[in-house]
Amino acid sequence: MSEVLYLGKAKSVHSTDKLDELRLVYLDQATALNGKKKDEILGKGQLNNEISSKIFSYLTEQGINNHWIKQLSDTEQLVKSVTIIPLEVVVRNISAGSFSKRFGIKEGLKLPTPILEFYYKDDALDDPFINEDHIDYLKIASKEDIALIKEQALKINNILIDLFSSIGLTLVDFKLEFGRDSSGQIILADEVTPDTCRLWDKETLASLDKDVYRKDTGDLVSVYKEVAKRLNEIKGE
Amino acid sequence: MSEVLYLGKAKSVHSTDKLDELRLVYLDQATALNGKKKDEILGKGQLNNEISSKIFSYLTEQGINNHWIKQLSDTEQLVKSVTIIPLEVVVRNISAGSFSKRFGIKEGLKLPTPILEFYYKDDALDDPFINEDHIDYLKIASKEDIALIKEQALKINNILIDLFSSIGLTLVDFKLEFGRDSSGQIILADEVTPDTCRLWDKETLASLDKDVYRKDTGDLVSVYKEVAKRLNEIKGE
Repeated sequence: MSEVLYLGKAKSVHSTDKLDELRLVYLDQATALNGKKKDEILGKGQLNNEISSKIFSYLTEQGINNHWIKQLSDTEQLVKSVTIIPLEVVVRNISAGSFSKRFGIKEGLKLPTPILEFYYKDDALDDPFINEDHIDYLKIASKEDIALIKEQALKINNILIDLFSSIGLTLVDFKLEFGRDSSGQIILADEVTPDTCRLWDKETLASLDKDVYRKDTGDLVSVYKEVAKRLNEIKGE
Repeated sequence: MSEVLYLGKAKSVHSTDKLDELRLVYLDQATALNGKKKDEILGKGQLNNEISSKIFSYLTEQGINNHWIKQLSDTEQLVKSVTIIPLEVVVRNISAGSFSKRFGIKEGLKLPTPILEFYYKDDALDDPFINEDHIDYLKIASKEDIALIKEQALKINNILIDLFSSIGLTLVDFKLEFGRDSSGQIILADEVTPDTCRLWDKETLASLDKDVYRKDTGDLVSVYKEVAKRLNEIKGE
């Protein structure tokens, strides 16, 4: 009785018997370079479901309104139904990735204050970097919505910096997505995983995130397992 | 006794015997695609000097603080010495150019409100599109400076829309640069010419600007002459 509503790069979205709830299935698939690189990676779906469930559950405890309801199985979770706002909200604490490339700045520099960027989620356009005038013109979100999203993103950043720091990881940068629930309220949606965060080990500076796949510098499953293990150790305290 | 302080793509900047004044020389040179296309075009320097002088003189009358003092000769003008803020401030009224490309939007659509974009003037980085967090991080300008620049840019836009409209031209989009004078005040600098504006004939929709050179669709000197002629006719009223 469940219908596939959306097939994404790393998750599929399914209807449930409740209109305002959806089932997410985390897939064993990794992509990079906007889908140009693509591989099946056994175990990735389970690890990301576990990691994202842990983090969203923690964000709920910290008062962050979000779509996560509960984990259903190894690879599935139940979430509130939202209409995704087609924005990738990127928060940067340390220079890396496209930021370093765009400005010719070496990776690893601490930014004095977090830098926020918006990208328009549109595969055909290659998710272009946009500004707030563009968001307004494209009717993606109102100026008030954007103010709320920025405020939430920075609040989430502070919470996640501390969370990851407590397990020996530096939150370099990450991507969030927000959605509107049935009442029209904007809440955090999508996932928070090593697919969507750059996480560096505080001691070794090693990447414990999708960069090992993007750059072919390590085994994705091993590093995601390490992140899941460290998060589980918090729970065990 | 005059020293070349800066050799740009379309102008050279020279010292004068006064510390707080500079001499600009408009060159017979056209470039496009960030300098990848480059040609000598006889008469262009004189036309742009004439056009920019006319427009800056008009902006002064309209109360816009700017660097222009007077025209010195066919290709030269005297300006206040400023330290250029390395930002290209782009104002868009109609969809065209990189905006249309970035969003897959056809050219020629009227934007409900003007759209403002900032590009970081840095040839080595190919003048990347940036946001206000980047401007802050790169110490290009303070948040207050940016607020002032945006306000000025929109004010100048309104003045120029009306000016060009009075000579049968639609101001599609344009690029401004600002600088700090010796007292630290931010004033409009650089040039306003068919090199830096997209101008479409209201009747025929023909480009009377550098797009004829960029796209090889017409003779640059003829269209710049037409703009200069129409501006001169205002003076003659």
